[in-house]
Amino acid sequence: MAKEVTSRSENYSQWYNDLALKADLAEQSAVRGCMVIKPYGYAIWEKMQSVLDSEFKKTGVQNAYFPLFIPKSFFSREAEHVAGFAKECAVVTHHRLMNDPDGNGVVVDPEARLEEELIVRPTSETIIWNTYKNWITSWRDLPILCNQWCNVVRWEMRTRLFLRTAEFLWQEGHTAHATAEEAEAKANEMVKVYADFARNVMALPVIVGHKSPNERFAGAIDTLTIEAMMQDGKALQAGTSHFLGQNFAKSFDVTFTNKEGKQEYVWATSWGVSTRLMGALIMAHGDDNGLVLPPKLAPIQVVMVPIFKTDDEHDAIIAKFGAIKAALEAKGVSVKIDDRDTLRPGFKFAEWELKGVPVRLAMGGRDLAAGTVEVARRDTLEKSTENTEGIDAYIVELLEKIQQNIYDKALAHREANVEKCDNWEEFKEKIQTGKFLLCHWDGTTETEQAIKDATKATIRCIPVDSYVCEEEGKCIFTGKPSHRRVVFAISY
Amino acid sequence: MAKEVTSRSENYSQWYNDLALKADLAEQSAVRGCMVIKPYGYAIWEKMQSVLDSEFKKTGVQNAYFPLFIPKSFFSREAEHVAGFAKECAVVTHHRLMNDPDGNGVVVDPEARLEEELIVRPTSETIIWNTYKNWITSWRDLPILCNQWCNVVRWEMRTRLFLRTAEFLWQEGHTAHATAEEAEAKANEMVKVYADFARNVMALPVIVGHKSPNERFAGAIDTLTIEAMMQDGKALQAGTSHFLGQNFAKSFDVTFTNKEGKQEYVWATSWGVSTRLMGALIMAHGDDNGLVLPPKLAPIQVVMVPIFKTDDEHDAIIAKFGAIKAALEAKGVSVKIDDRDTLRPGFKFAEWELKGVPVRLAMGGRDLAAGTVEVARRDTLEKSTENTEGIDAYIVELLEKIQQNIYDKALAHREANVEKCDNWEEFKEKIQTGKFLLCHWDGTTETEQAIKDATKATIRCIPVDSYVCEEEGKCIFTGKPSHRRVVFAISY
Repeated sequence: MAKEVTSRSENYSQWYNDLALKADLAEQSAVRGCMVIKPYGYAIWEKMQSVLDSEFKKTGVQNAYFPLFIPKSFFSREAEHVAGFAKECAVVTHHRLMNDPDGNGVVVDPEARLEEELIVRPTSETIIWNTYKNWITSWRDLPILCNQWCNVVRWEMRTRLFLRTAEFLWQEGHTAHATAEEAEAKANEMVKVYADFARNVMALPVIVGHKSPNERFAGAIDTLTIEAMMQDGKALQAGTSHFLGQNFAKSFDVTFTNKEGKQEYVWATSWGVSTRLMGALIMAHGDDNGLVLPPKLAPIQVVMVPIFKTDDEHDAIIAKFGAIKAALEAKGVSVKIDDRDTLRPGFKFAEWELKGVPVRLAMGGRDLAAGTVEVARRDTLEKSTENTEGIDAYIVELLEKIQQNIYDKALAHREANVEKCDNWEEFKEKIQTGKFLLCHWDGTTETEQAIKDATKATIRCIPVDSYVCEEEGKCIFTGKPSHRRVVFAISY
Repeated sequence: MAKEVTSRSENYSQWYNDLALKADLAEQSAVRGCMVIKPYGYAIWEKMQSVLDSEFKKTGVQNAYFPLFIPKSFFSREAEHVAGFAKECAVVTHHRLMNDPDGNGVVVDPEARLEEELIVRPTSETIIWNTYKNWITSWRDLPILCNQWCNVVRWEMRTRLFLRTAEFLWQEGHTAHATAEEAEAKANEMVKVYADFARNVMALPVIVGHKSPNERFAGAIDTLTIEAMMQDGKALQAGTSHFLGQNFAKSFDVTFTNKEGKQEYVWATSWGVSTRLMGALIMAHGDDNGLVLPPKLAPIQVVMVPIFKTDDEHDAIIAKFGAIKAALEAKGVSVKIDDRDTLRPGFKFAEWELKGVPVRLAMGGRDLAAGTVEVARRDTLEKSTENTEGIDAYIVELLEKIQQNIYDKALAHREANVEKCDNWEEFKEKIQTGKFLLCHWDGTTETEQAIKDATKATIRCIPVDSYVCEEEGKCIFTGKPSHRRVVFAISY
């Protein structure tokens, strides 16, 4: 074995950390709570970025860049937003270091104190709406559809690679509209983009829905979310899209002259996904041998390992691999020939399994003579012997099958663990075993909070397309009338 | 006219600012020294990123991501680096805000002081070499070839959009090697990537050379640079590549076991280009009507403006434009039809000229009848009438011609303003008129400093490929023996 991975049954949390670390995705840095994203992990993130960026642009969104720093006073403007975001963050107070007069390296120059402290952005609504104020005069200036790919910082006490880090990478879209309807439609459009991406590219069968008021983004009128089920049955919020109403426009005094010549406040949305998606990817599909990457996000889709006794055999196999590689690359498949001479084939097999490469080809002397190659699928761990003739077409099709199978497996797991529940005692028991429970809820924040206090479970969302939830019933906790079921789960 | 632009002869500096602002590339933000990069400007930066990223990867470089923050103590490790970088920077001292007890919004929580201050990265050598320490044990772990695209902050007192901002975007490559030769070769390879990009994509005829010791990066053994001449004859350093020797490896104790089993310090390079390239692009090619974008970096390569009297005429022209657009897009050309109904054609012409769109097509009723279209080149402002039949192929060729012409024009300007100079009195006079002067220099920092004090001119580089500079002579300032000429200029 390349590197020992803790099994899921033994310790799910340790298993996750092992995968992130040992598959070379990321590691903790010298700065508390900040991670280093290693090249293999970053290559997956780049693939995510590339697909998402292209989908955003298809909806008319353009990229821009806004400052890293936000003046402290901006956080006092939007009252709810302050409460939700302004607390745990990195505060810049000085702008100069100087040599320590005592000769111990450098110290902060006390004379270089900033007049107003700057906050490293935890999210950029405030600075962006302060900017939009200057961009918007008339309805002709609308809509504005901007996105930025950037880093943000939220001072987290307990951090986990990708899932919760002080600094993380994300994209944040911020749009400005002339009407509430248009803004709401945009918020809906973007959560759909996220859902399609999660399902079709990440092979993640997410549930799309509205957040309950208690779980909304600070400053939003409505928050849409995509919720994914991990293998332990916990929920992971994988992306959100917010209808912000006129809250930020009012806080930053952003008005426009409408077609009738009247002044109105602008309507807003914001939406984002982050490197947290990497955590979802690891936890949703990995197994006890390591990562299982959906082919559409795998930096290396096919790895080839030669098994040889003599130099001649080695050269003949490598030549054969070279031909298959060229044929696959011509079809857009990314391929690596692992020709390292200091490692045994078994070690290489384990390493590429750990790294989640979807397809592994191995060729030995007998294969060479027979015109065959051993094909191993990472998702099922099945092996078969195939003719090298036409192997490129076979693999292209296999990659599609693997992509689909990973999705189907995750969906089956979810379907096996989503249940209707109408009994509070049953709820308390089942929610601890890793279930998403579809329950009636009386619609109050008090009840939601009481359920959370009793079980740690929260309303993950009020589903819009995955389940038919509209029906009359009684709240699972209070017994009061309810008009629909919602999804309760314990979440990351 | 769309928006009035100051002419270059009137006020070159104001002209630059006008272009950056009025062509919608960027603007100052509410945070001192930090800019907002607007969608049109960011689209150009994205094109630069895309080409560079692909070229980096061809050389084996992989992207990764390292923390935004650097512990203060790291800056005390590499003595020269401290002196050069650690002074003017953003210092994070606290990690929490709280509600002001007096009710005035939020204030910094005095109890949330960090044990050790964190510096927002001005460049990442220190944090990266501290990370590489854990990645490198044996010669088998080398080379490491990482790059990151990120934001950095250097607290600048006087800022200018793109040219000098407190926060800017850049890429920084950091490589680790087993031998000095390999590291030097990498530093050379990367400056070549930059030079090819500047010349072939940005149409910028840069001079490649070594920096004098005085102008080297803090901590480098050798700094290679690409230097561009702006239209006022000043130099702009557009990218640098550093051979760092073993300095950072020694400061962060990064050693490896070589093939002979001995411990050695690792050899390093770093190299970067930034959003400063945007400033170079504006200043090198713009004219008094606005930006002139090389087609390879233009977000919109062809704009089409209809000129019509009746609705029928309008519809027929737009239909014709649609067909041309489809044909051009099939050839990879980006096209915009400007069908805004509230603006006159003359206004649109001026706006797209300001934004530097390489080719403008205009079609009126007569063109429609005759099967022709008016083609205007942004670089020469020439207009001609062409048949719409085969216009797509004509435009593809025209875009190539424009790309070449913009380069040729910049090169001719440079050649007209590079002179050998062997007389100190002549030097003092000519250097103020916007010349690059090829002069003998005695090789000492004292002389370089004395020349700078007298004229503000610095040694931009010791050229390696643009001019034959190896010859015996006498230093222009001290008269002492010299073995080569170097490039002196006043720089941005």
